[in-house]
Amino acid sequence: MEGIHILANLYGCKNNEILLDKMLLEKEIYSLIKKSGLEIVGKCFYKFKGAGVTGIFLISESHVSVHTWPEKDNSLNLDIFTCNVSGNNEDKAKKLFEDLKKLFSPSKIKSKIVRR
Amino acid sequence: MEGIHILANLYGCKNNEILLDKMLLEKEIYSLIKKSGLEIVGKCFYKFKGAGVTGIFLISESHVSVHTWPEKDNSLNLDIFTCNVSGNNEDKAKKLFEDLKKLFSPSKIKSKIVRR
Repeated sequence: MEGIHILANLYGCKNNEILLDKMLLEKEIYSLIKKSGLEIVGKCFYKFKGAGVTGIFLISESHVSVHTWPEKDNSLNLDIFTCNVSGNNEDKAKKLFEDLKKLFSPSKIKSKIVRR
Repeated sequence: MEGIHILANLYGCKNNEILLDKMLLEKEIYSLIKKSGLEIVGKCFYKFKGAGVTGIFLISESHVSVHTWPEKDNSLNLDIFTCNVSGNNEDKAKKLFEDLKKLFSPSKIKSKIVRR
């Protein structure tokens, strides 16, 4: 199924508390996905001892994943992949990306959009 | 954290039974990730009623995700993202991709490697 995949590395996040806090990270991303209109069908998060958090929300349209690296310049890897199962979801993916950037407040972003 | 991300769409999978079978899909991907030497830390799979399966394995090195579309030319979207937390995991990611292609046996593949 074709869709849009946003791959991003965010560095120097000013909201660095969230990079270490599994529950808070889940809660905030959950709220933003709900706001975006994408449909959550599952999730899995894992906290590394004394380090970051890795997690994913499965959505009907594909997935949103995050891997945080508080120990590496307060950075994280973020993916938003939405396929076009229920119409074109590109705008929802891009809006969610904007909202997630606001949440983490990075000083530097490396991102790429792949249409796949 | 920098790493390699393989994004692939596989079409016309001859092993189409697995695209509909959540338990089988989980089991086979689990075995191949274990074989690759990557470390599983979590997983979440969801079956759409009368349709495909969406799922992810969280690994210490990032994630492996799959979204199957038995109703769309027996296709699937596959991602293998490995960061270089414990040395360079590029060879493991590529070997796993080869093993997963053998598992699904597609007639056509569209893939891209992003170093991110």
